[in-house]
Amino acid sequence: MATAPGSRKNSEYAIPNTMRAWVLGNPDELTMVEKPVPEPGQAEVLVRIDAIAVCATDLEIISHGPPAMIEGGLPFNKNFTPGHEYMGTVVDLGPGVDEYDVGDRVTVEIHAGCGQCKRCREGMYTSCHNYGKNFGDQNKHHRANGFTTDGGFTEYAVNHVNTLIHVPETMSDEEATLVVTAGTAMYGLTELGGLVASESVVITGPGPIGLMGVAVAKAMGASPVILTGTRDNRLQMGTELGADHVINVRNEDPVEAVRKLTGGVGCDYVLECSGAAQAVNEALYMCNRGGKVCLAAFPGEDVPVDVKHIVTNNIYMYGIRGEGKSATHRASAFMEQKRFDATKIHTHTFPLEEVPTALKYARERIEDAIKVVVKMNQGK
Amino acid sequence: MATAPGSRKNSEYAIPNTMRAWVLGNPDELTMVEKPVPEPGQAEVLVRIDAIAVCATDLEIISHGPPAMIEGGLPFNKNFTPGHEYMGTVVDLGPGVDEYDVGDRVTVEIHAGCGQCKRCREGMYTSCHNYGKNFGDQNKHHRANGFTTDGGFTEYAVNHVNTLIHVPETMSDEEATLVVTAGTAMYGLTELGGLVASESVVITGPGPIGLMGVAVAKAMGASPVILTGTRDNRLQMGTELGADHVINVRNEDPVEAVRKLTGGVGCDYVLECSGAAQAVNEALYMCNRGGKVCLAAFPGEDVPVDVKHIVTNNIYMYGIRGEGKSATHRASAFMEQKRFDATKIHTHTFPLEEVPTALKYARERIEDAIKVVVKMNQGK
Amino acid sequence: MATAPGSRKNSEYAIPNTMRAWVLGNPDELTMVEKPVPEPGQAEVLVRIDAIAVCATDLEIISHGPPAMIEGGLPFNKNFTPGHEYMGTVVDLGPGVDEYDVGDRVTVEIHAGCGQCKRCREGMYTSCHNYGKNFGDQNKHHRANGFTTDGGFTEYAVNHVNTLIHVPETMSDEEATLVVTAGTAMYGLTELGGLVASESVVITGPGPIGLMGVAVAKAMGASPVILTGTRDNRLQMGTELGADHVINVRNEDPVEAVRKLTGGVGCDYVLECSGAAQAVNEALYMCNRGGKVCLAAFPGEDVPVDVKHIVTNNIYMYGIRGEGKSATHRASAFMEQKRFDATKIHTHTFPLEEVPTALKYARERIEDAIKVVVKMNQGK
Amino acid sequence: MATAPGSRKNSEYAIPNTMRAWVLGNPDELTMVEKPVPEPGQAEVLVRIDAIAVCATDLEIISHGPPAMIEGGLPFNKNFTPGHEYMGTVVDLGPGVDEYDVGDRVTVEIHAGCGQCKRCREGMYTSCHNYGKNFGDQNKHHRANGFTTDGGFTEYAVNHVNTLIHVPETMSDEEATLVVTAGTAMYGLTELGGLVASESVVITGPGPIGLMGVAVAKAMGASPVILTGTRDNRLQMGTELGADHVINVRNEDPVEAVRKLTGGVGCDYVLECSGAAQAVNEALYMCNRGGKVCLAAFPGEDVPVDVKHIVTNNIYMYGIRGEGKSATHRASAFMEQKRFDATKIHTHTFPLEEVPTALKYARERIEDAIKVVVKMNQGK
Repeated sequence: MATAPGSRKNSEYAIPNTMRAWVLGNPDELTMVEKPVPEPGQAEVLVRIDAIAVCATDLEIISHGPPAMIEGGLPFNKNFTPGHEYMGTVVDLGPGVDEYDVGDRVTVEIHAGCGQCKRCREGMYTSCHNYGKNFGDQNKHHRANGFTTDGGFTEYAVNHVNTLIHVPETMSDEEATLVVTAGTAMYGLTELGGLVASESVVITGPGPIGLMGVAVAKAMGASPVILTGTRDNRLQMGTELGADHVINVRNEDPVEAVRKLTGGVGCDYVLECSGAAQAVNEALYMCNRGGKVCLAAFPGEDVPVDVKHIVTNNIYMYGIRGEGKSATHRASAFMEQKRFDATKIHTHTFPLEEVPTALKYARERIEDAIKVVVKMNQGK
Repeated sequence: MATAPGSRKNSEYAIPNTMRAWVLGNPDELTMVEKPVPEPGQAEVLVRIDAIAVCATDLEIISHGPPAMIEGGLPFNKNFTPGHEYMGTVVDLGPGVDEYDVGDRVTVEIHAGCGQCKRCREGMYTSCHNYGKNFGDQNKHHRANGFTTDGGFTEYAVNHVNTLIHVPETMSDEEATLVVTAGTAMYGLTELGGLVASESVVITGPGPIGLMGVAVAKAMGASPVILTGTRDNRLQMGTELGADHVINVRNEDPVEAVRKLTGGVGCDYVLECSGAAQAVNEALYMCNRGGKVCLAAFPGEDVPVDVKHIVTNNIYMYGIRGEGKSATHRASAFMEQKRFDATKIHTHTFPLEEVPTALKYARERIEDAIKVVVKMNQGK
Repeated sequence: MATAPGSRKNSEYAIPNTMRAWVLGNPDELTMVEKPVPEPGQAEVLVRIDAIAVCATDLEIISHGPPAMIEGGLPFNKNFTPGHEYMGTVVDLGPGVDEYDVGDRVTVEIHAGCGQCKRCREGMYTSCHNYGKNFGDQNKHHRANGFTTDGGFTEYAVNHVNTLIHVPETMSDEEATLVVTAGTAMYGLTELGGLVASESVVITGPGPIGLMGVAVAKAMGASPVILTGTRDNRLQMGTELGADHVINVRNEDPVEAVRKLTGGVGCDYVLECSGAAQAVNEALYMCNRGGKVCLAAFPGEDVPVDVKHIVTNNIYMYGIRGEGKSATHRASAFMEQKRFDATKIHTHTFPLEEVPTALKYARERIEDAIKVVVKMNQGK
Repeated sequence: MATAPGSRKNSEYAIPNTMRAWVLGNPDELTMVEKPVPEPGQAEVLVRIDAIAVCATDLEIISHGPPAMIEGGLPFNKNFTPGHEYMGTVVDLGPGVDEYDVGDRVTVEIHAGCGQCKRCREGMYTSCHNYGKNFGDQNKHHRANGFTTDGGFTEYAVNHVNTLIHVPETMSDEEATLVVTAGTAMYGLTELGGLVASESVVITGPGPIGLMGVAVAKAMGASPVILTGTRDNRLQMGTELGADHVINVRNEDPVEAVRKLTGGVGCDYVLECSGAAQAVNEALYMCNRGGKVCLAAFPGEDVPVDVKHIVTNNIYMYGIRGEGKSATHRASAFMEQKRFDATKIHTHTFPLEEVPTALKYARERIEDAIKVVVKMNQGK
């Protein structure tokens, strides 16, 4: 393969000096600019982005700024590129990398922890205490692409090797963008304390994480897997992904329904994916004594919680932040083994030039969009 | 030793046929009656009660009925004897008991699980799914003395061997009644996910469990141990029990103070023992990312909770129910090794006849009562 | 349904007073006798046995006496009925049972712990410290049917509810007898420290547990799953059950082969099912640093072990004893979901009258017998 | 403070360009040379060494080369400086360090994992799969000072921040060198599966790790703590450090003695620190069913192991490699709180010039040397 003029390296993959990238200006202002292609440092690779899915958090960041603005002091509108659910091809290796080769197809998770705080040392890198401290004197080499470092609505991105997952030949680019969503559900269910086969799981809210939660719970042998929601077509999709029972909360009381389906005692786990105000208490009441509630979504304001119920029932309630503990690798293993068909939740595809349209479809759920994917030309 | 007339057995300990017992009538009505001395079944012993401490939950039960009334269907005012923090002497053995001998001094924990539900099989017997199902057709042999089965404001009680802890010769009867309180704090800190030496702990609320929480955290090597409260004399006691820092919330903002004492990141654990309405959110804000909040107390009503903070900070929030996982044995081991002086929280002593006075002291905190103990004649 | 004359109860299922049972005399002497049908006690049921598989341990017990002879003091040749991998139909309930109904199809695990020792209280009932103490003064209500209490080469058996697993309608009697074998493999892999999807597993030895280990590892998302053995037809069966790679140790060095298949570092887990003398060291050398070796088989004598390799590589080596931690329920959930076809290892079937022939087939591997099942008339 | 001529930096601490260092030539050849003072990289600091203890592993490395020679391909006799149990003062900071300041007193642990292998990502950095890969193309930034990177028999060393522990004002330099030894014992007991207060522990072998094991077990509330050995003076020291019972194996059978002291069932944990050939089987026989054996020492050759006993008793046997999971921080917290007096095992002190004498004392146990410390002039 010939090297393109102006490209930085002479390898199988010609790497240009600049690339097209969407950048964030004032709230809700996205512009496409030309940016330098970044260079990978120690333990990092350069990924040519082949596809990227839109996540609800992207919409949040584009409208209100990245969380790191508050947490890590990142400037809001300084040429920042959002987007974090991408996959692509390794085109360059930084020093110290032998885990991946140029040409490998990879998908990504978000968090590369600093590696030197208490949480990173415990293996809990998504809870890194140096989150967002990427710059200047306090440079901790932390990365959270699309949050505190540049993300994927562009052509190239630098990733720490710890954030990469091999994509098997049998998986399409579009499917590969969904690994991180499935990984988030996997992380929630595993980290909830170790869901094991034969335990009962309720998923509340059939959005992308909720639907992947159904699929993952079933793949792990949970029984029964129950999904609650308000829209019958989404619940139907849940059934196709492995839900043993679905409950339309417009028609029946979900707490009562779950108690009935679990012999009166309640379920072992609830994965809360709706973010509704009453959802936390409902999750607590669905749960049996000693059970666990994993919060994967949240309302914008404080909500009333029955703390007494938590205490007198020995309930564990966790928030999940991202997709830690290598859960993406586990999700990917199940997807490679075709234990569930994640592509069911992929509904729309747009080219890089149409990122604003892609975001609009995702935000307004146009044509019942679930996962909207932006696809580059070069992928497979 | 001669056998008393009318006694059931001929052993070292003469066991009478009947005993004096306080029983619960209508709310807040306690009467002393004569009751038959119960007989131990398989894996049970008969304990002669030598001392019993008053717990806030006793006051709750006496005023509003035992939780099992709701949970397990126990009748409220049917001759039920409350009280659960007792210790005494083994005077009779049921079949299948070789773990204890007649004459052994023992203190007790509350929960003997059914042994056949999911939680009991996991070792989580305080979260027994058959809680309160002691009677009739559904008899699961569950016991929670003072909650669903007769408790300790009397002279004798039957205990499953799983609820007994040996009392060493060097420990007084009064101190032995405090093992279960220390065990509850121990359980909270251990079950919070495994507090290890060198981690930071905040205890909010210097009541009996909070003060034992300080002592236990320190004994486990936590550093720093921080106590918050409103009364300087209680905070002073916390200092004597091992708190490295105390914060009077009337004088300074506890969240800010904790953040300052922990280098800005917050603490690893919060043990919430105040039950105050704002305490849950404050605990969440004191906690560092990936940290844990253990709820050992609760307000009477739903309280506003910042669920978003839980999710975006990967915080684990647990309720504890009792003193499971043999935590009482661990607390007792520390107390036997004189790692902390639990007797500091024992403030008042009354005889069995004066149980109502003892309860009044505890309820109204007369003379700053912390732990009020009822002491029988025969103890040591 | 009419009640048979001489039967004890009037229910849907007529229960006779006596039953045919194979009993153990001197070593290797099995006789069929008439025995009283036993009665279920507290938390127990009576199971009408519909099918039972032969396990290698049965052969051991029949030839050398049950382990409990040494461990628990059980008399060897006193009317003891061996056999532990059975399934059947619940025909009578003892007091305190509401988890199962008369008519339920069930399969069984072996261990009902005493419920009052340290291990049972931790949920580790297969490591019960009162193993075999079923009798007389020290009666701990421990059961290990086919080991310390009567087993299943007969028509009826008493089981504690904790040893029962529901059999779904879609599962044949023969398949249901294999749940305990799959559960043993499940226990080993889970208890090895929590095998998670995407980790690498080697199974050494394609006997019944090894083959179920392949199936279970694959169902849990392990990758790759590697099986070693000496017979190509068994390895072929491993491939059908989910092995990604098989290694015939007659043709290649298994340690080298595993290292090659795992990028040079070795695998995360080894499940040792061969019992060969060199197998322990080979397992250690196959394992990567920080990896785990689960021993599900063992040689008759001490074997040389490279302890230095264990220490310098931080390897964890576990023995498994039975199928604890409710692993049978998890195995059964996977089997019900048709994640693997356990029936592949069922090769022969005989009626109750021909138990000696069934044992002979299993012992001598006649016609390459793997799992030999004894099937009663009444089952489905 | 004035800057010394020829020093590299102008700070509170004048850092010379070169330093005196002992380096390893052929086996057992140590020479003192002048070496450049190294510079700290990203997340690293420069430590001025104030004291260093001699470990048995140092003697091994000096005689046979560092393990990394085999494992990581490090050249044996190329100017390598051994020694790993050192402490000192931070005198320079690399980029990205805010956890420590110049002037901080610190002690060290050995392993800075690569941060990018499976084990490091799990928090198991002592089991790093890239151990020893520090150089050239495969540079993984792994450090194991004194093993694969230069150690502490010199004046300055570079340490990753993850390998540092703050030394409190109240702790002497000599005591601070013992943190890593106590941390190794702590790691073994914690990682054995979570020793909790009230469990029984046997330590076999009263060397430095064994004696620290006694102290740590006691500090964690273990009961009883039993120490076995052959020398009465060492056993006496064990008693002073907290052993409840000591067993001289020259006078009594240790397995029988342990069983007697534990009511016949055996102990919950054995920490094997003798490396004797029969020690593994003895440890297994001392252990109760479901118990754990931690191997902290090992014989030079394969030893016979009763694998059957491991399997039929569900025993867990672990090797420990170093002092992972931040155990040094936990040991240090206990030492700061004066829970045990580690200085009891410090017996001899020599200056840097006399390293060969210090090694000789340690190797030949001259004057019953236990821990021999090399002390520089500048420390406190």
